[in-house]
Amino acid sequence: MTKVKAANPVSPLAPARFPDLPVIEGVEFAAAPAGVRYAGRTDVMLAKIAPGAAIAGVFTTSSTRAACVLDCQEKLKARVPADAGAAIVVNSGNANAFTGALGQEAVDAVTGAVAQALGMPASRVFSSSTGVIGEPLPYERITAAIPALTAALDAGGIEAAARAIMTTDTFPKGAAAEIEGEGGVIKIAGIAKGSGMIAPNMATMLVYIFTDAKIPAKNLQKMLSRNVDETFNAITVDSDTSTSDALIVAATGRSAAAEITDLRSKVARDFEAALHGVMLDLAQQVVKDGEGATKFVEVRVSGAETAEDAHKVAMAVANSPLVKTAIAGQDANWGRVVAAVGKSGAKADRDKLRISFGDMVLAENGWRVPDYSEEAASAYMKGQELVIGVDLGLGKAKKSVWTCDLTHRYIDINADYRS
Amino acid sequence: MTKVKAANPVSPLAPARFPDLPVIEGVEFAAAPAGVRYAGRTDVMLAKIAPGAAIAGVFTTSSTRAACVLDCQEKLKARVPADAGAAIVVNSGNANAFTGALGQEAVDAVTGAVAQALGMPASRVFSSSTGVIGEPLPYERITAAIPALTAALDAGGIEAAARAIMTTDTFPKGAAAEIEGEGGVIKIAGIAKGSGMIAPNMATMLVYIFTDAKIPAKNLQKMLSRNVDETFNAITVDSDTSTSDALIVAATGRSAAAEITDLRSKVARDFEAALHGVMLDLAQQVVKDGEGATKFVEVRVSGAETAEDAHKVAMAVANSPLVKTAIAGQDANWGRVVAAVGKSGAKADRDKLRISFGDMVLAENGWRVPDYSEEAASAYMKGQELVIGVDLGLGKAKKSVWTCDLTHRYIDINADYRS
Repeated sequence: MTKVKAANPVSPLAPARFPDLPVIEGVEFAAAPAGVRYAGRTDVMLAKIAPGAAIAGVFTTSSTRAACVLDCQEKLKARVPADAGAAIVVNSGNANAFTGALGQEAVDAVTGAVAQALGMPASRVFSSSTGVIGEPLPYERITAAIPALTAALDAGGIEAAARAIMTTDTFPKGAAAEIEGEGGVIKIAGIAKGSGMIAPNMATMLVYIFTDAKIPAKNLQKMLSRNVDETFNAITVDSDTSTSDALIVAATGRSAAAEITDLRSKVARDFEAALHGVMLDLAQQVVKDGEGATKFVEVRVSGAETAEDAHKVAMAVANSPLVKTAIAGQDANWGRVVAAVGKSGAKADRDKLRISFGDMVLAENGWRVPDYSEEAASAYMKGQELVIGVDLGLGKAKKSVWTCDLTHRYIDINADYRS
Repeated sequence: MTKVKAANPVSPLAPARFPDLPVIEGVEFAAAPAGVRYAGRTDVMLAKIAPGAAIAGVFTTSSTRAACVLDCQEKLKARVPADAGAAIVVNSGNANAFTGALGQEAVDAVTGAVAQALGMPASRVFSSSTGVIGEPLPYERITAAIPALTAALDAGGIEAAARAIMTTDTFPKGAAAEIEGEGGVIKIAGIAKGSGMIAPNMATMLVYIFTDAKIPAKNLQKMLSRNVDETFNAITVDSDTSTSDALIVAATGRSAAAEITDLRSKVARDFEAALHGVMLDLAQQVVKDGEGATKFVEVRVSGAETAEDAHKVAMAVANSPLVKTAIAGQDANWGRVVAAVGKSGAKADRDKLRISFGDMVLAENGWRVPDYSEEAASAYMKGQELVIGVDLGLGKAKKSVWTCDLTHRYIDINADYRS
């Protein structure tokens, strides 16, 4: 039983268009409509990665994570030699989560069919599923689409792949970077999906990043892991963490540039910065497509005694429904920011706290500033991109997280998601 | 500058009427319109408690708590002899929170004026303020109302007091109990306010409970403290904790019943059970007046390995915006309950989890039950009072928390609270 789904209006925070992503040598993409849940939309994507690629990944920490996540984690741990090539197959519409033994059966069927079609071991086929939880995945619809997918593989197909993995997303998400390696250019291109159930811990969405860098898998994994906290773990839409989500990076090694072996080298640092940039860009696009979002908000915490406290305060503010509804209402209700700091559990001293909106300090020394202007604060709130600053005045730790407002559309979308 | 405020429609979950509360000998109440924020509504209440009363209290744990909370905590710690009598003065409309030195000045002015009018030391006058954060409290409007308040003191005035402390509340909240003491009846009557910014830790609302029991203050405090976790700390509307809130219990000792000195005696256990009942009743009324609530939901967790895990799971489900919007949409989306369990941080095993709605088991053994009926589950969701059961299948710890759904009204109310 497939359904026809009405399209959501595109987020007002969406970029003007999908970016031009470079072709990554050694990767081909295809997308197809398999009717997993809705008729008439592409809902499966396949990425084929040439032999020799290094693969790294980070996954949701949910204790109820889906079969495909457990499967990816096992396959990555097994460190199968890279010379076999690799593939990523993703469906939207059904998360294949909390589906018992049928869950693994579906993963085995889909990854097995891809492996057979592409002539590689199933241990190198990584799968993801996103959508409704608790319904059996009609995997035979996906396996039936594999011949069409393999026939359509195309080095230029990344945008179609980005579209195929959308669920309540209102725009496809892509980001890219290029750096000068030693002896050649290194390119990075990534895609992501996500707009609800977005909160740490990693990785509360699906993200696939491809690069032609030549880099050992352990170096790639290290870079990935240590850049997640400030990118995908620093965003939140609704404080809900998914059962399913995954970030996989594949490095094909097809660039002319030399291998990145020393993590302290200039090229390693350049590559890591570029990777960080692509990750942060995709993470921020996910927030900008936050369900019902009309404002993009950075919560910038400084002056915390510890990094953990900075994180707690930033997340408490970013997840506060009262702060998020005030932003939706364009109400400069900084008192709710104070309340969120207070409840965060982090060490805070009311009289040392400084609250600012953009460059405008609103409150310090335990009270609003003497020249506080409600008009100026309200005018600031009419902007589409906002920065809420919280300085705790206690130490040097800082943390930024990105979030969006909480609007009627969020409720429209989520009170009526399944039916 | 006072404002005229449009009344919110009464919550569909409200009780038919305010309960008949017994007169508690030794307590008188008055309410008056002081124009703290809005014109034309009673916004200050005064309770005068006769000499000899024992007072106990618990307060918000927010690190940005308001001056009146700090003041109450200090006064309770000081253990001023009870023979002076006591008073509680409360205003709505302005929380006097994050108002710097002016905050304490306002508390001193209000409690000092009440002390003078009633002929008791200011150290026995407890004050609370609720409403907007960060604006100076126009305390001269409150002190100006004190003559009218003292003139109007009346043993039967508790309902008017309950109305005076309302902010976004749509109905006044009261609860009562009576037990047989040794040699006479002991009565308890309590009132509460709260409908948003409701979440632990204690005490995320204003609650005042009066009893004619004769009981030492330390026994009263002990009973109060140990019953908070399962009542006021077991409810959540929006996961936001207030800067201001307080629960104060006054025991006048005017009952003919003997003093409750031994906490293990039958009468002590009866009294504690009755106190618990009043606290739980008031706590549940607060949820039923949750901003925008249309459904009253118990999240009943069992089978957890530890009490902490049971609490984490219950709160994760009760605070999940995705669960709460599904309930608003009458969508039996138990998959979101699974996701909330997964993100809770508590120990959980996907394959041992059992999810039920009311008496209907929906999912167990890692998947939905074989005879799962979407129709039956959907029909259940149309009820106004729902029980979501989560059995973790790991141990014996359990926890219930009470919450409500997340609807458009919550956003209407909170995107437009201050203006």
